[in-house]
Amino acid sequence: MSEIRKHYFLSEYCIIAEERAKKPSDFTGADEDTGKESSENCLFCGGAEENTPLATAVYKNGKIYSDTPEKRVRNWDFRCFPNLYPALSPAQDIQEPGESSLQAEPGYGFHEVIIESPLHGRRLEGFSDSEISGLMQVYRDRTCSYTTREKIHYVSLFKNFGKKAGASINHLHSQLIALPFCPPPLARELKAIRNKESCPYCAIFDIEKASPRTILENSEWIAFTPYFSMGPFEVWVLPREHVSYLGDCSDGMLFALGEILREILKSYVRILGNPPFNYMFYQLAEAPEYHLNLRLLPRLSINAGFELDTGTYINTMSPERAASYLKGDLRPEDKNRKIEL
Amino acid sequence: MSEIRKHYFLSEYCIIAEERAKKPSDFTGADEDTGKESSENCLFCGGAEENTPLATAVYKNGKIYSDTPEKRVRNWDFRCFPNLYPALSPAQDIQEPGESSLQAEPGYGFHEVIIESPLHGRRLEGFSDSEISGLMQVYRDRTCSYTTREKIHYVSLFKNFGKKAGASINHLHSQLIALPFCPPPLARELKAIRNKESCPYCAIFDIEKASPRTILENSEWIAFTPYFSMGPFEVWVLPREHVSYLGDCSDGMLFALGEILREILKSYVRILGNPPFNYMFYQLAEAPEYHLNLRLLPRLSINAGFELDTGTYINTMSPERAASYLKGDLRPEDKNRKIEL
Repeated sequence: MSEIRKHYFLSEYCIIAEERAKKPSDFTGADEDTGKESSENCLFCGGAEENTPLATAVYKNGKIYSDTPEKRVRNWDFRCFPNLYPALSPAQDIQEPGESSLQAEPGYGFHEVIIESPLHGRRLEGFSDSEISGLMQVYRDRTCSYTTREKIHYVSLFKNFGKKAGASINHLHSQLIALPFCPPPLARELKAIRNKESCPYCAIFDIEKASPRTILENSEWIAFTPYFSMGPFEVWVLPREHVSYLGDCSDGMLFALGEILREILKSYVRILGNPPFNYMFYQLAEAPEYHLNLRLLPRLSINAGFELDTGTYINTMSPERAASYLKGDLRPEDKNRKIEL
Repeated sequence: MSEIRKHYFLSEYCIIAEERAKKPSDFTGADEDTGKESSENCLFCGGAEENTPLATAVYKNGKIYSDTPEKRVRNWDFRCFPNLYPALSPAQDIQEPGESSLQAEPGYGFHEVIIESPLHGRRLEGFSDSEISGLMQVYRDRTCSYTTREKIHYVSLFKNFGKKAGASINHLHSQLIALPFCPPPLARELKAIRNKESCPYCAIFDIEKASPRTILENSEWIAFTPYFSMGPFEVWVLPREHVSYLGDCSDGMLFALGEILREILKSYVRILGNPPFNYMFYQLAEAPEYHLNLRLLPRLSINAGFELDTGTYINTMSPERAASYLKGDLRPEDKNRKIEL
């Protein structure tokens, strides 16, 4: 049973989830890279369905199926099931907080993994058009299936790729955590947005479209290295149309999103080899003022004492220079070429 | 020349500082651990003074000296000089922001390193009483010397220890970055504090003193694993007396601070081996309402997509359990012993 604890006097939260690691030796060396994992005993592979929890949804040839305790669906395209070590879970005993001056609530919520291929070793860069757009539809479908649940106020959908980006299993997957509160960064954004006369993301769209930071665009989306970049090669993807969450995206928008996402990942591989990275959807189904966006961050630097202290990031590569590399104007071997902005 | 960029529509900042790494190959594999560094060619060692920038302050037998271009001070106890790759620096050409709809300012500020011993391989856990209290006095002195500078609104003082905590050189040192703005997390804290009738940190002191999370206390300070903990074995250190920054601390308080800090680091080594960690002072010289605190965080887990998306931390060890280990009630080998709270 996990617990959601509130900060002593701020509207911030942490989740205490002890299921996974309980003793100090579980931490020492826990993130050492043990080299390329094999598919042997991989729970995420097609054929291992019996060894996982019952699927919450199985996608196959464009249709959605359900596992039953008697029969697991096989030969799927995408498969979703509850995380074996959930940060939050739906069944929670209501516990009184132990200390009256402090605030906690049961760790209610949902935590699932989205397996993006039955085959070990596949990567999004190699997905066909129909595979990548199928995955975007799964993202939309899973988001929608949680936004309507009771007491859920945010659906966090993200990918951790590589050990340094927090992935513990290297079979292609994303995760979804549905929260009973609006996360503080989103709450702050929403407050700022509501103080404005028009959508600041629509304004960002216009600014970046005309800037040297745009790296890709298509009929529905724009991808750029944001003027305000936390780290090297951070990329944001914004829809041209103001929509607040994936549930508002048409099939055409999702097709175009898959296309642009795949291209960004290809350029990461071309420039950076095989970098660890995260991507995260920022979306608020409950707030039509919000403007859906997707952010990608290769994990090339470490947030150290300064970042922990000040919440301010030191970025050793300007987004303008990063955009030049991502667009192919600069190649990795162009060591000393100056970038004209 | 670095640049401080403001977020498109939030009061948040990033610092673009390209001096250190400019091409993609500077990132790939940049944080691979190459094993124990030797003292050969170490710029931080006693004897290498000629190879560093001129010291901003040299501490020797309780007195403060200055380097001159003709003569560097030798046989020092602690030595401070400007970071060779500064995130911010005092001399800045005033540049007009390139794009009118976006906000940037020159990267004005100060960035120095505090070398904590002339000897390679020393560690704070092995410091004598007078060495550790001398270092706390240096921390106070360096903080004070920057809080009074023009246009400086925050002094960030922190230690990165170990590559996974962001240290690039393993000779014992801390860093100080003086900022021309109040960092967003501190600004949010201050706003919440000003909305309260009394100091919430004084209230935290009272709560934690009576809780199972207190691990150490002395006449001046208390150390505890905070109820709201971002990660395993996070520890906060609070002064009993309400002071807002290190400049308000008496010599007696600093002596007691050194004592408690050294004990916490010893318990980290005892329980976790040789963990990478950060510690950071949270202090506001300009705001007497603020209550100085020091936070320590071993870097045992990775902030992944969920944390980046939601600003919410999943912590796999409760602070109550962590406190039991740190106090010695539990030993690392007590794998299955249940903690009574």
